[in-house]
Amino acid sequence: MTDAARPPNPTPKSLLLGLIGAPIASSAAPHMHQSAGAALGLRTHYQLIERAGAHRGDLRAMLDGVRLLGFAGVNVTFPYKEAVVPLLDALSQGIAELGAVNTVVVGRDHRLTGHNTDSTGFGRALREVIGDVSGGPVALIGAGGVGRAIGFALAGMKVPELRIFDREKAKAEALVAALGGRLSATVVASVDKALDGAAGVINGTPIGMLPDTGCPVPVAALKPTMWVADVVYTPLWTPLLLAARERGCRVMTGRELCVFQACDAFHLFTGLDAPVGVIGEAFDQIMRRRAGVREV
Amino acid sequence: MTDAARPPNPTPKSLLLGLIGAPIASSAAPHMHQSAGAALGLRTHYQLIERAGAHRGDLRAMLDGVRLLGFAGVNVTFPYKEAVVPLLDALSQGIAELGAVNTVVVGRDHRLTGHNTDSTGFGRALREVIGDVSGGPVALIGAGGVGRAIGFALAGMKVPELRIFDREKAKAEALVAALGGRLSATVVASVDKALDGAAGVINGTPIGMLPDTGCPVPVAALKPTMWVADVVYTPLWTPLLLAARERGCRVMTGRELCVFQACDAFHLFTGLDAPVGVIGEAFDQIMRRRAGVREV
Repeated sequence: MTDAARPPNPTPKSLLLGLIGAPIASSAAPHMHQSAGAALGLRTHYQLIERAGAHRGDLRAMLDGVRLLGFAGVNVTFPYKEAVVPLLDALSQGIAELGAVNTVVVGRDHRLTGHNTDSTGFGRALREVIGDVSGGPVALIGAGGVGRAIGFALAGMKVPELRIFDREKAKAEALVAALGGRLSATVVASVDKALDGAAGVINGTPIGMLPDTGCPVPVAALKPTMWVADVVYTPLWTPLLLAARERGCRVMTGRELCVFQACDAFHLFTGLDAPVGVIGEAFDQIMRRRAGVREV
Repeated sequence: MTDAARPPNPTPKSLLLGLIGAPIASSAAPHMHQSAGAALGLRTHYQLIERAGAHRGDLRAMLDGVRLLGFAGVNVTFPYKEAVVPLLDALSQGIAELGAVNTVVVGRDHRLTGHNTDSTGFGRALREVIGDVSGGPVALIGAGGVGRAIGFALAGMKVPELRIFDREKAKAEALVAALGGRLSATVVASVDKALDGAAGVINGTPIGMLPDTGCPVPVAALKPTMWVADVVYTPLWTPLLLAARERGCRVMTGRELCVFQACDAFHLFTGLDAPVGVIGEAFDQIMRRRAGVREV
């Protein structure tokens, strides 16, 4: 009997969530949030609201719908993380400078507050998996949307020096400016310079995401003392992380960002502690299904 | 293990529905639709969108949300069944004259079409439970919202004569005018006149709904040859139906309208045949819970 075929319990508490973006059909978010809700006894529905080419008016109407129709909140993803910012009633601290929101929470009086759990989730993942990141400079490759979220995450983590490289130098400069002295951040002119003597390396670019099989850094620059984190999760073991693991580096896969951004969002939506293990297992199930692995 | 606590299937097809109205906290609709969806393998969420005092602009924003956020459709109930009519893109046949919508379906291109399954559902219930209603005049007591839906249902059913009584004569006259010759309908000046020689009697008023314990017709006027239908379902066996049953009349409780309006709405939302037995059992479960009967 499939889950859907089971007669539902007539009266559990219910929780309505969603995701606005495009393309999102293969998102792991519904299963992560629905599993988390189920584990806490909440009848949870996470609606994929896929819409390409939405203009400001469309986004405003969608957010008004979220506001009025009983959603606890929604996640927002590509290409709308920046566009929703001016449409919200309030922003959590630091978001205005980060300039991107991935989580919108409906509060009392139907007010919408924006958060960025890509940022908080990455920070939490790094603390859980890598631990102390105060041992030396950190190299951040990529200063696009994810890179910015990571930069703001590191600002709260006693990183002694952040070296930011982006092929588009202006993006790296913009991130340094946005960070505004929250931590010691500099633009570097090459990946080699970023990694020279670094304690940690973070890939915030899509390099290594299938079908791409490249590596964002020269593998010879990876030292066994470094920790290495990747935001790419298809595959989980990117060429970067495979090389880093081979050299004995401590590593963090893109799974952790996915899982912890969802945990932080679930907490914001519900006020409840997110069941990290349940959300992680839900993510892994989706990855196994995508990979064509049969569940036993 | 409660339903909510079961780990959900990661990839069933999902269906998002809702109900706009107030008060609706004790509605049986979520359980009826969620059970129907589950029986057909759809991960179904039916959101109670309770909002009192919504003005036209609020309703428009709510309907735009329904349009844009992936709902297959929503039901609409008191006090908004009339107010939503001018906000829709299209109306099913006859609805403009009926003037009330209880089901809004989101179509291709996000167009909203209004239907009234109180009307179609009552007609279907009557056909299933009573059968032929062409044997003689039908007395309809009450020409308010439900009464109007019933009048339009009877218009398609070869009722030879419809006698409409309402304490507010203007309402009965308005219904006759709205029916516009769809069937032979007349306003009658008293309940006695409505029932004199009638083959069927329908209570479309709230008389007999707890805490009220009245009867909308003098029980002496009920004849064993009559069929008697009530729209009240709390209690299922109203004083009217108890008296009718005692006299040997064929009867139809308010349960049937509730169940068949939901079946028709589910069909409109999904294009699928609604599982009548599942929806009926879901309704009965809710009624038992309300009555404080423990499930075994």
